[in-house]
Amino acid sequence: MTSLEDLPIRDDLRGKKAYGAPQLDVPYALNTNENPYPPSDRLVKALGEAVMDVAGSLNRYPDRDAVALREDLAAFLDADTPGAGLTAGRVWAANGSNEIIQQILQAFGGPGRTALGFEPSYSMHPIITEVSGTRWIDAHRDEDFGLEPGRAVAAVAEHRPDVVFLTSPNNPTGTALPLETIEAVLDAAPGMVVVDEAYGEFRREGTPSALTLLEGHPRLIVTRTMSKAFAMAGTRLGYLAADPAVIEALLLVRLPYHLSAVTQAVARTALAFREELLGTVDALRAERDALVGWLRGEGFAVADSDANFVLFGTFPDRRQVWQSLLIRGVLIREVGPPEWLRVSVGTPDEMAAFRNALKESR
Amino acid sequence: MTSLEDLPIRDDLRGKKAYGAPQLDVPYALNTNENPYPPSDRLVKALGEAVMDVAGSLNRYPDRDAVALREDLAAFLDADTPGAGLTAGRVWAANGSNEIIQQILQAFGGPGRTALGFEPSYSMHPIITEVSGTRWIDAHRDEDFGLEPGRAVAAVAEHRPDVVFLTSPNNPTGTALPLETIEAVLDAAPGMVVVDEAYGEFRREGTPSALTLLEGHPRLIVTRTMSKAFAMAGTRLGYLAADPAVIEALLLVRLPYHLSAVTQAVARTALAFREELLGTVDALRAERDALVGWLRGEGFAVADSDANFVLFGTFPDRRQVWQSLLIRGVLIREVGPPEWLRVSVGTPDEMAAFRNALKESR
Repeated sequence: MTSLEDLPIRDDLRGKKAYGAPQLDVPYALNTNENPYPPSDRLVKALGEAVMDVAGSLNRYPDRDAVALREDLAAFLDADTPGAGLTAGRVWAANGSNEIIQQILQAFGGPGRTALGFEPSYSMHPIITEVSGTRWIDAHRDEDFGLEPGRAVAAVAEHRPDVVFLTSPNNPTGTALPLETIEAVLDAAPGMVVVDEAYGEFRREGTPSALTLLEGHPRLIVTRTMSKAFAMAGTRLGYLAADPAVIEALLLVRLPYHLSAVTQAVARTALAFREELLGTVDALRAERDALVGWLRGEGFAVADSDANFVLFGTFPDRRQVWQSLLIRGVLIREVGPPEWLRVSVGTPDEMAAFRNALKESR
Repeated sequence: MTSLEDLPIRDDLRGKKAYGAPQLDVPYALNTNENPYPPSDRLVKALGEAVMDVAGSLNRYPDRDAVALREDLAAFLDADTPGAGLTAGRVWAANGSNEIIQQILQAFGGPGRTALGFEPSYSMHPIITEVSGTRWIDAHRDEDFGLEPGRAVAAVAEHRPDVVFLTSPNNPTGTALPLETIEAVLDAAPGMVVVDEAYGEFRREGTPSALTLLEGHPRLIVTRTMSKAFAMAGTRLGYLAADPAVIEALLLVRLPYHLSAVTQAVARTALAFREELLGTVDALRAERDALVGWLRGEGFAVADSDANFVLFGTFPDRRQVWQSLLIRGVLIREVGPPEWLRVSVGTPDEMAAFRNALKESR
């Protein structure tokens, strides 16, 4: 039998393990920051009808540039962030924000180039960076998981990376960046600055989106996803907003017809149901704030959360706690700094199950 | 206004144009080798129902490894090529065969590595190769668009590429490779050998699929797509068959959750309707053979075709002929060797329109 070691894979992949949270069938899945609220019956029906509307021409290739979907996304973002002047020409979409990030690295990174991030952060940033042949530089977050602007600027000035990743709110720690930090990095960066706002819709009051900085910053890219607040993880639709020239650059590297006609139809239908889908965000933020409060009351250390998950600790042996929760039917995520665990914010029932399991696991 | 030139894109992308056949709204679209026969009403309904079945849990991530879909694809290939012993562990799927090719290059190519092909061939092979940071080597096809095994082996021995692309049937020339050529290259190649069978289902009698060579060749990868014979271009579903160790290698580079729950459901439904969808292949092959005969009768040079398109010529000014057809509502493709044009095989009506327009354009 042939093994992976027998194949001529790239040297830097040798010995690596495939990325991925375990996909286990458990009563309480609180490990991948999904929105726990499923689509309504009305939306399910609308999705089926939208697919039937395009299915009659599935023998044909889809619109390669997904213009109608990008118009809808732009209108959505523009309503969300008035004054950002977003149009289809400033928005791009792909199969999940992972593909968005990959296209950015293919256009602006590559062999001989570097991308810099501040870890702990989204673990796919370095993985996609390295698969694209770009060298990854980890400039670390502060001890308290924050990012002091002066230190961030110094790291950018020292390494002069071609791409900088700022994750706001940060995953897995949960805290959003103040705009001043993003502006300081934008001023210092010689290349592109990607602000990953996968969890942006969950921000606490008072932290504006980096979308408000797009005007006048042609090297800024803000990425978003329909997988989290938008409750459409199964649809795989990521998108970005940036200067039209950035979109032109991505056209050079995107795979032709990367977005299926079905994905375009499903995403447009979901956008038409934005009130239903985003209607759960306030409840999830309240549930999150209650969870942070409860964990602190129980004596845990908890990172401030602007997301739909909470990082808490500290555990000398976090694996043991993770397993003890799993035995009780609650799957959370062993990720980020070594003594911490991450739990997604679910329904009130799911949170009650988590609290009970954690109490029994102490 | 910022222009693409102002942005810090990769140096090797500077001055490049985005790939893509023009997407024009014309009465007769014979330019992208789509299957002209749309899904039946029964299939359209089944696709809508399949999406409704999964839509209720679209807030959750899809099966990251698409196991059920891969089982269905394996069963389909196994029935098509008895004895190939295909199981889900030997099959992989992605958003179009372009993404399949990209993943292969990410795992087995990359900076400092090379991929070799024989042009004219599928134009995305060199593009995806270069975007992945791999160096492309064009070893050219023979003058008659064939590929003499001795010369192919000599090119492989000379360049020792990490990946070899063999396209069979070849696009845009149309002719399939004899198994002997593929076997000779497999014996000589130090790295992976990709046989791109995007048009495999249209082969004339007597040319076996490279699937029959999988046993005993762990470095062989056979790629397929549902975009052509399977009449599902809008679904974007490409797949491959290979040794299980190859699939393991691809797991290291694929983007997590790359295939949406909707894509998985739609592709599985299409596979369940394989008799309907592939039921048009015989008619298309007959139409193709008639087209080849007619073109030769009119005095054109025509490449032997095992595909659903025909390459014909020669034209001192092919652009003028292409435009003259377009004015008459017939869009074909200006691609491949400089004095030739490629036309997709459509319905009898579409072919009649093409013949009339071509006669008027001489």
